[in-house]
This record gives sequence, C-alpha cells and structure tokens, in this order.
Amino acid sequence: MSLIPEPVERLVAEFGRLPGVGPKTAQRLAFYCLRTDPERVSRLADALAGLRSAVRPCSRCFFIADEELCAICRNGRRDASVICVVEDALDVIAVERSGEFQGLYHVLGGALSPIEGIGPGQLRIAELEARVADGGVSEVVLATDPDVEGEATAHYLAERLGRSGVRITRLAHGLPAGADLQYADELTVARALAGRRALDSDRP
Amino acid sequence: MSLIPEPVERLVAEFGRLPGVGPKTAQRLAFYCLRTDPERVSRLADALAGLRSAVRPCSRCFFIADEELCAICRNGRRDASVICVVEDALDVIAVERSGEFQGLYHVLGGALSPIEGIGPGQLRIAELEARVADGGVSEVVLATDPDVEGEATAHYLAERLGRSGVRITRLAHGLPAGADLQYADELTVARALAGRRALDSDRP
Repeated sequence: MSLIPEPVERLVAEFGRLPGVGPKTAQRLAFYCLRTDPERVSRLADALAGLRSAVRPCSRCFFIADEELCAICRNGRRDASVICVVEDALDVIAVERSGEFQGLYHVLGGALSPIEGIGPGQLRIAELEARVADGGVSEVVLATDPDVEGEATAHYLAERLGRSGVRITRLAHGLPAGADLQYADELTVARALAGRRALDSDRP
Repeated sequence: MSLIPEPVERLVAEFGRLPGVGPKTAQRLAFYCLRTDPERVSRLADALAGLRSAVRPCSRCFFIADEELCAICRNGRRDASVICVVEDALDVIAVERSGEFQGLYHVLGGALSPIEGIGPGQLRIAELEARVADGGVSEVVLATDPDVEGEATAHYLAERLGRSGVRITRLAHGLPAGADLQYADELTVARALAGRRALDSDRP
C-alpha cells in the first residue's frame, strides 16, 4: 500500500522528469503545490498547457516566436548581414545579455553527436545554408558550445559554408571573466595562450 | 520589446515561484518544456491541474489523503496509542522511511513563529489536543524540527499536553549518521554530549 495518494505520486514523477530535478526535489515541489495557494498551482498548470499552442519556432532563425518571425528577426534595426549560429534558444538569450551582438541568429537545435545519432540532417544546417545562399550575409559567427560536439559542429559548418565566400568566425576561447588562473583547467589555459592578443589591439 | 514571447515569460515566472527555483533554473525548465515532447508537458500540466481536486488532508492526522482518512490512519496494523507530531507532510515521509515508527502521525502544518505571525491558532494544535483527550493515546512523540521554531513548538506542546497525563517524548538530538565530528557545529556537539548514553543501553 502506497503512503502517498496516486495523483501526488504522479506529480512527483512528472516533476522528476524535468532536467536537473532529482527525486527529493520533485517530492518537495509536489508537496509545495499541495500546501500553497491552489490559484498559484492552476496558473502554473495553465502556463504549461498554453505554452505549445502560443509559441512556435521563428520560421527564419528558429528562435522562439509568437508570430511567423521572432522579435529579433522582426526588429528592423538589427544587422541582417551577420548571423550568429547557436545550438539552442537559451544560447540566444546568453548572447543577447552580453549586449555586444547586433546581428541575427540561427538556432541549430543541437550539435553534431554521432553517439546520440545526431548528424547534419537532424540540425537546421540546410536552412542556414539557404539563408547564406540567399545573399546579404557577410559574416557567420559560430557560437556553438566549446565542448567536443560544439567544436565538431563548428568545424563542420566552417567547411560547409566555406565555399559560400562569407567570413566565418568563431567565438573566442579563453579564461572566463573573473576566473582564477590557478584553478583554470589545462585546456582552457592552453586555449587562452593560443588565442593571446597584443595589448594594444582587440583584433587577432 | 521583449525578446521572449509572453507565454514563455509567464511560464518562466511561474516556475520561478516554486521553492528553490531561481531565475536561471526557471528559464532552463521553461525552455526544456518548449523543446521536449508536448505530450510530456501536457502530462505535467494535467498532474498539476488534477492535484487539488483529488487530494485533501486526512481528517484525523492532516497528512495527505485521497479518502476521508490517509493510508496510514486507515492501516489497522498501526499502533494508535502513539502519535508522532511533525510540522509538515514531508516529515511523515522522512519518519516512515526510517522504518522505526509504527504509530500514527499528526501534521501541525508548520511551527510557532511570532515573526511570521504563526501562533498556536494557526497550527493544528487544538485538533491534536482533541485526539489526546479522546483517549487511547499513551505517548506523543514530538518530532518538530531541531531549529528555533521547532524547539519552541515542542516546548509549547509539551506544556499544553502535559496536563493530559500521556508520556511526551522528543526525537533525540545528536550527531547525524555518517557525520564527521570535527566538522559538526558546536550546538550539535553540545546536544550530542548532553544526550550521551551508556553503551550497553539504548534508553536514556
């Protein structure tokens, strides 16, 4: 005989399927929902239920949108000649937060990973090629993650887009802001050394 | 102009209201819901929406139940002469996991906290008194948390129930299993010393 009623068990299980939510956290969240204002729980349920019908990927860059194009692609003041290629929609937000990028984006929807069976056909690479082929693009910034899959994806894209003649760049690798050199891993230090710059210049 | 469509912003806000979920985690969870199988998101929405209608507090002990009484109060093999008093429904699960308690519970719904305006009237203390007054109870185990509010609540209950003549006990304080003495805080060590036992006995 289970101690906890089935609807609560089910909610614990569903919370536990969210990324980064372990069994104890899932239980804590479910019990919080039992204890708190029912209105608040309904609002969360409604927000979840309404999500997919109200939101879709931007038809140009595949960032999230509530119209045909996302807010960034609709913004006429963005520089359409530069495309920043990222793995995931959350990466767009990270780049936007920096305040340093005025161009448009292209969300691949992941990175190449033979182990997980993700090849070029599973990513939005053909769509990126089509955007570059349409013209008006002078630079593609490869901003995939600095891990094995992200690097492989960047190299693959650099090769595939190389023929188009546009400038292909990659986000710099090096020490993160505020880091402590003595605690940095060796690959980060190696990349920071390889990418060192003259102090009077901010171009490589 | 917001970067993120309003339904996504709303979901991020609702996730962010859950305990222990910060703004970044809320965003990560919302974007996961955008990316994952819509069926999975619906299941979470349904589990939340159905929660309150299917579950209510047990009318005797206030643990969660899907009938008039919870699974523990319905279980005829439990010892109804011992009541373990806890602050929260999750505490019942913690005590049950120990496998050491065969009695019934009483969930207070919190602890006394003048700062938060929680007095005896906000907790289910009158209901506990009524259960004790009904007879058949030989021991009340006070299992409120070993923090300021929990201690105050335990002392208050001990005094209020003292007149009833039942045995009032408190969970032992001391070093947690697997702890490292050198890293234990001074209050825990002080309580472990005060509660020390002869090695050939497990009664104080």
